[in-house]
Amino acid sequence: MAISLGELATQFGCELIGDADVLVDNVASLNNANSSSLSFLASPAFKDQLASTAAAAVILCADDAENSPTASLINENPYACFARVSSAIVPARSFDPGIHPAAHVSSTATIATSAHVAANAVIDDGTTIGENTYIGPGCVIGPDCQIGDDCQLIANVTVVRQVTVGVRCIVHPGVVIGCDGFGNAMTAEGWVKVPQTGGVRVGDDVEIGAHSTIDCGALDDTVIEDGVKIDNLVHIAHNCRVGAHTAIAAQCGFGGSVVIGQRCMFAGHSGAVGHVTICDDVIVSAQGMITKDIKEPGVYASSFAAEPVHDWNRKVARFSRLESLVERVGKLEKHGK
Amino acid sequence: MAISLGELATQFGCELIGDADVLVDNVASLNNANSSSLSFLASPAFKDQLASTAAAAVILCADDAENSPTASLINENPYACFARVSSAIVPARSFDPGIHPAAHVSSTATIATSAHVAANAVIDDGTTIGENTYIGPGCVIGPDCQIGDDCQLIANVTVVRQVTVGVRCIVHPGVVIGCDGFGNAMTAEGWVKVPQTGGVRVGDDVEIGAHSTIDCGALDDTVIEDGVKIDNLVHIAHNCRVGAHTAIAAQCGFGGSVVIGQRCMFAGHSGAVGHVTICDDVIVSAQGMITKDIKEPGVYASSFAAEPVHDWNRKVARFSRLESLVERVGKLEKHGK
Amino acid sequence: MAISLGELATQFGCELIGDADVLVDNVASLNNANSSSLSFLASPAFKDQLASTAAAAVILCADDAENSPTASLINENPYACFARVSSAIVPARSFDPGIHPAAHVSSTATIATSAHVAANAVIDDGTTIGENTYIGPGCVIGPDCQIGDDCQLIANVTVVRQVTVGVRCIVHPGVVIGCDGFGNAMTAEGWVKVPQTGGVRVGDDVEIGAHSTIDCGALDDTVIEDGVKIDNLVHIAHNCRVGAHTAIAAQCGFGGSVVIGQRCMFAGHSGAVGHVTICDDVIVSAQGMITKDIKEPGVYASSFAAEPVHDWNRKVARFSRLESLVERVGKLEKHGK
Repeated sequence: MAISLGELATQFGCELIGDADVLVDNVASLNNANSSSLSFLASPAFKDQLASTAAAAVILCADDAENSPTASLINENPYACFARVSSAIVPARSFDPGIHPAAHVSSTATIATSAHVAANAVIDDGTTIGENTYIGPGCVIGPDCQIGDDCQLIANVTVVRQVTVGVRCIVHPGVVIGCDGFGNAMTAEGWVKVPQTGGVRVGDDVEIGAHSTIDCGALDDTVIEDGVKIDNLVHIAHNCRVGAHTAIAAQCGFGGSVVIGQRCMFAGHSGAVGHVTICDDVIVSAQGMITKDIKEPGVYASSFAAEPVHDWNRKVARFSRLESLVERVGKLEKHGK
Repeated sequence: MAISLGELATQFGCELIGDADVLVDNVASLNNANSSSLSFLASPAFKDQLASTAAAAVILCADDAENSPTASLINENPYACFARVSSAIVPARSFDPGIHPAAHVSSTATIATSAHVAANAVIDDGTTIGENTYIGPGCVIGPDCQIGDDCQLIANVTVVRQVTVGVRCIVHPGVVIGCDGFGNAMTAEGWVKVPQTGGVRVGDDVEIGAHSTIDCGALDDTVIEDGVKIDNLVHIAHNCRVGAHTAIAAQCGFGGSVVIGQRCMFAGHSGAVGHVTICDDVIVSAQGMITKDIKEPGVYASSFAAEPVHDWNRKVARFSRLESLVERVGKLEKHGK
Repeated sequence: MAISLGELATQFGCELIGDADVLVDNVASLNNANSSSLSFLASPAFKDQLASTAAAAVILCADDAENSPTASLINENPYACFARVSSAIVPARSFDPGIHPAAHVSSTATIATSAHVAANAVIDDGTTIGENTYIGPGCVIGPDCQIGDDCQLIANVTVVRQVTVGVRCIVHPGVVIGCDGFGNAMTAEGWVKVPQTGGVRVGDDVEIGAHSTIDCGALDDTVIEDGVKIDNLVHIAHNCRVGAHTAIAAQCGFGGSVVIGQRCMFAGHSGAVGHVTICDDVIVSAQGMITKDIKEPGVYASSFAAEPVHDWNRKVARFSRLESLVERVGKLEKHGK
């Protein structure tokens, strides 16, 4: 959709340096922009690319404007501003309301008239789909679920049962919500399955990445609060509670009953063992593993950075002989007295 | 389903302290129980909740009975007892036998008359589905597979080919069994795919969590023995053998040809590199990585607990300079002689 | 398919020691071979099994031939040779060209006449499927995608949009290609989704394992070059570029904009944080985490091997007190002066 820079400046609260009548119709990186592209500069790492960009305009902060070879849309938060502008220039794919003839919808399910249920989707008994919500091909929504308004379930998503999803949620392909938690009681004859009878409650404006799995609660519900962003291949076990606006990167995992505060951030491959509570505003670095309650906001870490294996192995060997080093120091101390 | 405490006590071998005629019709956590709920106490962490529970009855061990404000069902293993009672009170969702008109079943497949094949399920040539087995929506069962009696494949499960599954198995959404193992031979022109011609044999009473993947064998079969419990997003490579009653938590991964003994337990994000053998009764803690054969039962670990990044970075820096510390101690020792 | 040893020797460039007229019709491990099996010996670990094999013939290198109790097909690279021979003896399952009546193909999609689109597959607007390509049951191919010739998408694969896949690619069940990258801009009101408008370009001869996810680019494309082999449950974030012939084992993860060179190898559970560049011919060991640019080929590591928890915990405790050990050594040094 073509929009003028003047209109963008007004609509998104930017100061415009340049020709207000210039039209942009696509978004692009600084390097790959053309004369009708809008681009942005949000990180110092890309300053070099600014000088040579062919973009029609660049969203950036005031300090960078003097280095721009083209029109500038000045905003305090260029990345967030670009996100909003980009949604206006490249609108989401539209869909026609209605139920595809090859979808299978229970007679006791309720589908809003503006919703779309695609081919091969299955909607089970007692389930409700909200207005303007898109249920993509191959999605299976089990019984007694409520999917709110303006949601998108892209494709091949499985929502097992007793799951409520708020409004404006985006659920990427392959996500599973409401599968049984891993509950097994040990006996002399082996494991006995503990029935998982809780559900899952997902708030508003939540996004869940491809193939992430969110278990139903064992008895009480698993809860994902508003504005939580979850990347791909993340595991959230039964009875976890993830606080509002927390962001979880790919392949993180959380054991049962973990409580996570608001605005936390988990880098890739990190997570927490079961039954810990993590306060608000905690950041965990890649591969970091939380093993006990965290009561202070801040950054937490427990992983090493890869280095040449020869160097690494020497360090590991020294680490393995720390005990003997301590003994040697002890002897020296004793001797010195 | 409403059941009297008296009947539960008889059926599940509990001593009842309280009114045998009281009926329970739901299971709940101690905190969320109501006057017709059955609850349980299996961990000291929940003792505080016992005092204030509104449950009709609580399953617990003899020592805790005196602290119960309500009826007690006393059992040596309250968690396992609760698991069994819960199955009686909250029976699994029933299904009607038969093949949904929108399922696609090969003319050479054999579906037991009491089995259910749901909408959009696909059953390929020569495959057999056992009695009372539920094949959920979107499941794809490839050629030459046998799924035993009383199994549940919840939804969107893919069983590729040459897979046998025993009886009473539960396979959660998105599970893939029998996909090709990662076999590639290096040549000057790049990788050459090594055809994976083995199958997968899954025993009885196995449960496999959402999105876990179990590769077929390269030549011989991959084997999952009876009673194995696998959580979500677990990877089991070609030619692994997982011993009976072993439990594997979410996101664990096992390289090719790993042999795991019986009754092992793997915490989240742990695993083993290829070609190692792990004896019976081994426990691996979260993120632990087995790199060589384990011949003694016990607990194994190789990970650190997250801590504030400032503290962690200091330790990592010290770790990186261990070599120089060792040299300093060596000098002191030499000097002291 | 039965083939004579003589024909195999000619066709695959082996020296035959044995009867050229003997027929083999299956491939098997040394231990499980029968009198019409072809087997191979590529690792010293299996030499013991050679002596007792019942195989009709074994592919091995010249040095091992004298220990073979049966016919030998001698080749410099027995594993790669076996891979090629195996493909001839056990050909891939064939399929009939055509579109299954229960597939849903957009009127603006183009399906090659020799391609197969299976039951419940969905092909969206403007998408092209190449010659001899197999689109398995439950696959969803979104709009504006091109899948090249001779590809196999086994089942329940989701290709979201704007994805091109080269020729001879194999995509295993559950793979998701072209899902949104994890792009969120922080604001005072919470996260704002950054639209992901790039696509994914996958080269020729690429194999992608079950449930791996490859995000579309934020603006520019995510790129997987020719000959890349990806195992199960791997995460490749937006704007990564994976160099030709790189192999990535299960559960690896790569943050956004990671550039990986050619012929690299990543062992299980390893990966890289976002925005790093890794040169050609780098090997990363299991659980290794790359955190900065790698400019030298070689092996890189950052993980520990599991050991009995008592030993491990002592080391971790020593590690935690390293600072005080350094102080003690400092005192001794000062004292000695």
